[in-house]
Amino acid sequence: MASLLLRVLIGRFAVVVMGFEVAPAIRRRHVVRTRKASSSSSSSSPPVAKKRVADKTKTSFSSSSSSSSITPAGTDFSQWYLDVIQAADLVDQSPVKGCMVIKPWGMSIWERLRGELDAEITARGAENAYFPLFIPQSFLSREADHVDGFAKECAVVTHHRLLATETGVVPDPDAKLEEPLVVRPTSETIIWHMFRKWINSYRDLPLKVNQWANVVRWEMRTRPFLRSAEFLWQEGHTAHATAEEAIATAEEMLDVYARVVERTLAVPVVKGAKSASERFAGADETLTIEALMPNGWALQSGTSHFLGQNFARAFDVYFQTKEGARDLVWATSWGASTRLLGALVMTHSDDAGLVLPPNVAPVQVVVVPIRTKKPDETRLVDEAIDEILRALRGIRVKVDDRDNLRPGPKFFEWEKKGVPLRIEIGPRDVAAGTCVLAPRSSGGKKKEALDLDRISEEIPARLEAIQRALLADARRKLDANTRRVDAYDEMRALLLEDRSPGGFFVAPWCDDADNEDKIKADCKATIRCYPTDLQAQVHEGNPLACFYSGRPATHIAIFARAF
Amino acid sequence: MASLLLRVLIGRFAVVVMGFEVAPAIRRRHVVRTRKASSSSSSSSPPVAKKRVADKTKTSFSSSSSSSSITPAGTDFSQWYLDVIQAADLVDQSPVKGCMVIKPWGMSIWERLRGELDAEITARGAENAYFPLFIPQSFLSREADHVDGFAKECAVVTHHRLLATETGVVPDPDAKLEEPLVVRPTSETIIWHMFRKWINSYRDLPLKVNQWANVVRWEMRTRPFLRSAEFLWQEGHTAHATAEEAIATAEEMLDVYARVVERTLAVPVVKGAKSASERFAGADETLTIEALMPNGWALQSGTSHFLGQNFARAFDVYFQTKEGARDLVWATSWGASTRLLGALVMTHSDDAGLVLPPNVAPVQVVVVPIRTKKPDETRLVDEAIDEILRALRGIRVKVDDRDNLRPGPKFFEWEKKGVPLRIEIGPRDVAAGTCVLAPRSSGGKKKEALDLDRISEEIPARLEAIQRALLADARRKLDANTRRVDAYDEMRALLLEDRSPGGFFVAPWCDDADNEDKIKADCKATIRCYPTDLQAQVHEGNPLACFYSGRPATHIAIFARAF
Repeated sequence: MASLLLRVLIGRFAVVVMGFEVAPAIRRRHVVRTRKASSSSSSSSPPVAKKRVADKTKTSFSSSSSSSSITPAGTDFSQWYLDVIQAADLVDQSPVKGCMVIKPWGMSIWERLRGELDAEITARGAENAYFPLFIPQSFLSREADHVDGFAKECAVVTHHRLLATETGVVPDPDAKLEEPLVVRPTSETIIWHMFRKWINSYRDLPLKVNQWANVVRWEMRTRPFLRSAEFLWQEGHTAHATAEEAIATAEEMLDVYARVVERTLAVPVVKGAKSASERFAGADETLTIEALMPNGWALQSGTSHFLGQNFARAFDVYFQTKEGARDLVWATSWGASTRLLGALVMTHSDDAGLVLPPNVAPVQVVVVPIRTKKPDETRLVDEAIDEILRALRGIRVKVDDRDNLRPGPKFFEWEKKGVPLRIEIGPRDVAAGTCVLAPRSSGGKKKEALDLDRISEEIPARLEAIQRALLADARRKLDANTRRVDAYDEMRALLLEDRSPGGFFVAPWCDDADNEDKIKADCKATIRCYPTDLQAQVHEGNPLACFYSGRPATHIAIFARAF
Repeated sequence: MASLLLRVLIGRFAVVVMGFEVAPAIRRRHVVRTRKASSSSSSSSPPVAKKRVADKTKTSFSSSSSSSSITPAGTDFSQWYLDVIQAADLVDQSPVKGCMVIKPWGMSIWERLRGELDAEITARGAENAYFPLFIPQSFLSREADHVDGFAKECAVVTHHRLLATETGVVPDPDAKLEEPLVVRPTSETIIWHMFRKWINSYRDLPLKVNQWANVVRWEMRTRPFLRSAEFLWQEGHTAHATAEEAIATAEEMLDVYARVVERTLAVPVVKGAKSASERFAGADETLTIEALMPNGWALQSGTSHFLGQNFARAFDVYFQTKEGARDLVWATSWGASTRLLGALVMTHSDDAGLVLPPNVAPVQVVVVPIRTKKPDETRLVDEAIDEILRALRGIRVKVDDRDNLRPGPKFFEWEKKGVPLRIEIGPRDVAAGTCVLAPRSSGGKKKEALDLDRISEEIPARLEAIQRALLADARRKLDANTRRVDAYDEMRALLLEDRSPGGFFVAPWCDDADNEDKIKADCKATIRCYPTDLQAQVHEGNPLACFYSGRPATHIAIFARAF
């Protein structure tokens, strides 16, 4: 509550300062324009009244978030993350443990990201299909590593009917399934069962399918987006005649993930391969994109697996080669999920709420009319807004014309929801042929006047600039928090200190699962990946010593704590 | 096999006939053009060789369908339906009873329909969200009718872990859920649980959410698309301050369904209300769109429910009215599913396979190059195809340039898959500045020459005409098979005769659930709906007698057998 009051006060103060700063130096028209900027905001009510109104800001879905303030990230990062998600109204807790309700604002972001990913995936020859939610439990056991990886966290369907009893409904003992079904944690097994029917000859290859689906992994400690029992994702599955082609496909899809995540979410990532102990259950190689969150922890943001012939062997999928021989099929699978929204939230947001890159924002520009009681003035403002809408065709614009809210609470709400640009426009702005522009990425604090007739060029340019700036800023932080370490103690000290900055630790490494375990036990860091770009450093002409064992390095590894 | 050979022979014969028919009457240029048409096809191999090639037509997913022939609809409608679905490669059987695999061609049709529906739904103010797959079993019991309707066919999750034993994995007895979870058969209960959190005042209303999701209803007798244990759908849920507003919304969404189904799938429907015994479990009123399939059976194709205050009462959802009173919220829900693809398949297809309306066809025009062994000619054909692609920008065109297949099997494959227009183009066509056009809706038998420079106007016009013609044709059949009956025996006789034409029977009716049951037991017909358009016939000035009981009619009902 206190922090909310403070924010409102600061908001008012900033506007006044701005009025003073700009006014003296400029000519008449500019003065008018500047006065508009301040007039827009000064029509907001005083802080206390504003707070009262803010409590009423309930539109669909916002009831739970409107009155809560956001714990500063510096105070408690973990709570800040939850608070931002709630303030932006992205998800809500469901009555089912570990399952989230994705609310419209969150869903709209996901749909946009999904659209971008889908276009790239289908452009690479994968076709969308849909496979059953349920997998016979015996299928999981067919691939030994796979069952080890997933059996521990499966939702198991055992009955197909409920029976009404005096104390309520119960699973009907007479409707027990002969073989229990597992709710898919991932679909390799059922898809490779189908691939067996579909693949006979080299002419059937490559075979590339993708599905958008919900999956369930029974997690005990859940966090919205980052780790939940049910989540939404895309899983691609491909079959190939050669290992080389499969590996090339796994790499291609990792590139797709990296590019889409950077382009739409403005989240920079490092590409690389997982160490054996961090691989997908059933993979010969797991490629990953790893993002670095502001708390210094890594977030695995998409993985692409080279599955070798493991699933072909488990499901008996052979093909006739061009030369007439019979060979096992080579496989990949790759997935990206709603977890990416967690990366999005953490990377850009601030203590005022969510910050959205324009490419993924459901609303790119919100227009808030500053109305007076005079019908003439209202008409002028409405006409100007119509003009703005015409000028911004192709941009996702929302006019917030709710009449039960004053402008202040509206600003506050759209700030929390992360809309990249806000346009305020009142009668005096219209008279001056201007409007007030407030970019979200400045914390909503930097306001400026903008000529109405420049809107059609200026706004798209601003949105592009914001998108670029968010990515550049995130990349700068990634670079600044990536440290080369040649001795384990350096990393250990940085990770174990109070308020550790965390970060990516780049170190020469001799591949050794036992040592990985020891390091994890000691300082909670794990190998996030062997970054693709850096492996060339390890070669005969450049003998490097493992930063932990001192033995000759086999890889350059990135260590970090991770979500 | 025999029917396949026959088709191929007929195909060749038709081309020869066409060559003869057209050639004598026309001038030089036309002769050339006509010869092209026949040359294109005469480059197909002779029947037997063609058959051999057809067996190799395996691209992704087509392996199971390539060699199968289609049972004529007149011989066995039910088998014809399955055969068309298999020939067009829409779905495949999964190893899980009653669950289908939707293959890329089927998925692509669904995605297009989904896109059209989604645009209309969101344009009406519903926002997409996502609710958990799992519902606590106790939730189902909260609404008495609802649990009666769905408890009998629920997939029940009872464990959250598998345990490896010597004989395989089993549900881990130590990982039993405290309260079993039901895989959603529909989401009213969990959504109204959330609505309780989100709704406090009239300002929170109306609240409209929609979700695209998979649902599970454990059906014992399944058929692809029409009835399956798992299916994909959209379910909309709305909350309102007044009954009137809720009813208007339920009606509005039914109109959306009718319009989208007619516009995209070219399937005409009748709108109406269900009788009490056919209502959704928990609804005060169920509105429906009913289509009539060529076998004379009705297919319920989308429903929209006015739920009264039933779910608000069950989940304790009150709101503060404008006047400060406290009232229960009014509700609707409405859903349309992959079942619509069953309507699509049955309405337009023929004994050669699927027929797709252009608006929903993944490929609207397939171009099949007729290649020779001369590189010069191949180059000319390829250049002409590039030109065709430029001319058809905005149309979904596929060039089938597989070099392991001759044109004949390609024609055959795209016919089975229902692509609306085929363009054949060979060197002699190019020399004459023409190509050959073969529309699917004529059974692929009517071919004609088309000037290349007219393609950009002609093809879009043809596609529109095909779309219109398919709907008009289906509507004509619907009208022809809708019969007014004033005596029950008339309907009974028509329904019970050998090879009954079925159809919609429009009859004056006195609402009576017992009589409904008797009619169903007697001739398997049920009330599909009380068609909205006809209810005005029942009024005081026009006393009508119920066609069954002779009592004064309360409704005009449509009876039919139904899927």
